[in-house]
Amino acid sequence: MEQRVFTFNPGPAALPLSVLERVRDEMLNCRGTGMSILEMSHRSKEFESILNDAVTRIKRILKLDDQFDVIFTQSGASLQFAMVPMNFAQDGKPLGYVDTDYWSSKAIKEAKNLGKEVRILASSADKEYTYIPKNFPVEPNLSYLHLTSNNTIRGTQWPLFPETEGVPLVADMSSDIFSRVFDPKPFGCIYAGAQKNAGPAGVTIVILRKDFLERVPQSLPTMLKYSTFVESNSLYNTPPCFAVYVVDLVMEWLEETIGGLEKMEAINRQKAQLLYDYIDSQDFYQNPVNPEDRSKMNVIFRLPSPELEDRFVQEAKKEGLIGLKGHRAVGGCRASLYNAVTVEAVEALLQFMKEFARKNG
Amino acid sequence: MEQRVFTFNPGPAALPLSVLERVRDEMLNCRGTGMSILEMSHRSKEFESILNDAVTRIKRILKLDDQFDVIFTQSGASLQFAMVPMNFAQDGKPLGYVDTDYWSSKAIKEAKNLGKEVRILASSADKEYTYIPKNFPVEPNLSYLHLTSNNTIRGTQWPLFPETEGVPLVADMSSDIFSRVFDPKPFGCIYAGAQKNAGPAGVTIVILRKDFLERVPQSLPTMLKYSTFVESNSLYNTPPCFAVYVVDLVMEWLEETIGGLEKMEAINRQKAQLLYDYIDSQDFYQNPVNPEDRSKMNVIFRLPSPELEDRFVQEAKKEGLIGLKGHRAVGGCRASLYNAVTVEAVEALLQFMKEFARKNG
Repeated sequence: MEQRVFTFNPGPAALPLSVLERVRDEMLNCRGTGMSILEMSHRSKEFESILNDAVTRIKRILKLDDQFDVIFTQSGASLQFAMVPMNFAQDGKPLGYVDTDYWSSKAIKEAKNLGKEVRILASSADKEYTYIPKNFPVEPNLSYLHLTSNNTIRGTQWPLFPETEGVPLVADMSSDIFSRVFDPKPFGCIYAGAQKNAGPAGVTIVILRKDFLERVPQSLPTMLKYSTFVESNSLYNTPPCFAVYVVDLVMEWLEETIGGLEKMEAINRQKAQLLYDYIDSQDFYQNPVNPEDRSKMNVIFRLPSPELEDRFVQEAKKEGLIGLKGHRAVGGCRASLYNAVTVEAVEALLQFMKEFARKNG
Repeated sequence: MEQRVFTFNPGPAALPLSVLERVRDEMLNCRGTGMSILEMSHRSKEFESILNDAVTRIKRILKLDDQFDVIFTQSGASLQFAMVPMNFAQDGKPLGYVDTDYWSSKAIKEAKNLGKEVRILASSADKEYTYIPKNFPVEPNLSYLHLTSNNTIRGTQWPLFPETEGVPLVADMSSDIFSRVFDPKPFGCIYAGAQKNAGPAGVTIVILRKDFLERVPQSLPTMLKYSTFVESNSLYNTPPCFAVYVVDLVMEWLEETIGGLEKMEAINRQKAQLLYDYIDSQDFYQNPVNPEDRSKMNVIFRLPSPELEDRFVQEAKKEGLIGLKGHRAVGGCRASLYNAVTVEAVEALLQFMKEFARKNG
């Protein structure tokens, strides 16, 4: 294709066009340094200012006070699944997890594999993970309570975070961080791969509350201790400089082009509403999720048959609507509506859905 | 600066201009997909073909036969310092290390921190790390023998790898992989952060011999097991897609523009020789390294005083010659001559060095 398509990829996902244009324009000579961002020393004042700007913007966007540090790690949420229990499990205090399927299950598996005592406080397995558990009891003796804020595969999202009787929350927010306003205070740790709402694959943003940092065992390998990253401002060794640079540009776009997190949330609600309202108004497409727990980021839907679903994905692709196949673990279709997916893109998808239903319904 | 400078950065380092131009030109629409490489699903056939091409080229360039796998990990050599002993230490068999300063010391520290029995087989600490130890005895009962093939800070490089009586070698080749021809057969594992000779920061290339893969304990966390990466073709979770893409472009440049590893090595020898020949011909600049162990990648040199060294670095910068400051751990000056640093750049540096000596000598 010569033109740009509309991508509804589940991650790596669409990025703002203005960010991509800036990356392109600066590729050979980044901000008057005479070199590419790819060639720049991570110890240069130019790169440190980019990294610090990204941290400052993240803290401002999420309203993180001085109790929180923001660091950049690598290897995605999947490494965090192990690092969280390695760093934050306290002696004699079990780890609490909520099971909302795929990604939360992986987090649970890694904690158990480390030999930790894991308590599954709640699960939505009884109804095929079509809802978010609520009002479950939380024993006060837990090291932390871990949850996955948005579930990309099942299309569910925590509408509100649970009351925990003082037990600190830990959240994998890979797929909805920077998409909506939330209160960070109950969280000891938040981690998120950047490749949905914050930038390209290759960097993981971790937010740490200072009391959690005190839990880190000194005996861990250097690169598996969160304290290493905090103490060095994420510069103990060479960070993924390019990915941090793009995160900074995306955060700048979120603040200065979109106008902040409240405005981003309103746009995200509008996009999701367009699809859910249409799905609820007809019978060809079905969404199985409990309405109040529906994800604003990943709208899943089934068609009358797997054959029609395949045809839907293929014909959409021909129309320049990319990434609509559901996750291989569950099938069906899915439109991921991360921050950089425009209302225009969602309207184009809606138009296509209507026509496809008319022809095949 | 409006023009591009000559970078002698120790890493992240210079990249071929043609690679940067290609990255720029494809940034909004990568190979007719209608999307940026930053937006592309890691499960798409387009990305998989980029990743597979990178692996194929790396295997061809290094003449790796079917006994070897090539994987892409993250978090740099610093995480490998811990993963190597976690994955490859065998019961009752100590780990052998050679101490050639800074980076090798960090590798030793991580192995010891894991509680492993570590033997330092040789060290060049007695002469301030100005040479590479040779002809040291290797006990045959070691799990492996670890070395750092090129020492960026001290400016030393193994001219030949040691005979080990069958003990497999493990090497941190972060700073000289793809710079010269070597026989991979004695190596059980080779690892290298990409940001010197292979691409941008954010991806670590690991080469694994199949018998080493059999050592991997199943109990390790998923993302800390090398087998996870081999079994999934580095796609267990989202890899650092952009960094892999640039590595592929750099490997293509090495094969198709440069003409392969023999030609690359000849160019690298020529560049280093230009500087060493000049340094040896006068008294203003001094290089302390044993001649046969001098690095072709990092030429270190001292001037008559720290003040002159500071002035040298500052005036060079004004002339568009960047990154000549020695590592903060040792001081002095350093020119890093990685693959993408051109002969033209080295000649410009040589010219500057001569003029600076004339004015200040």
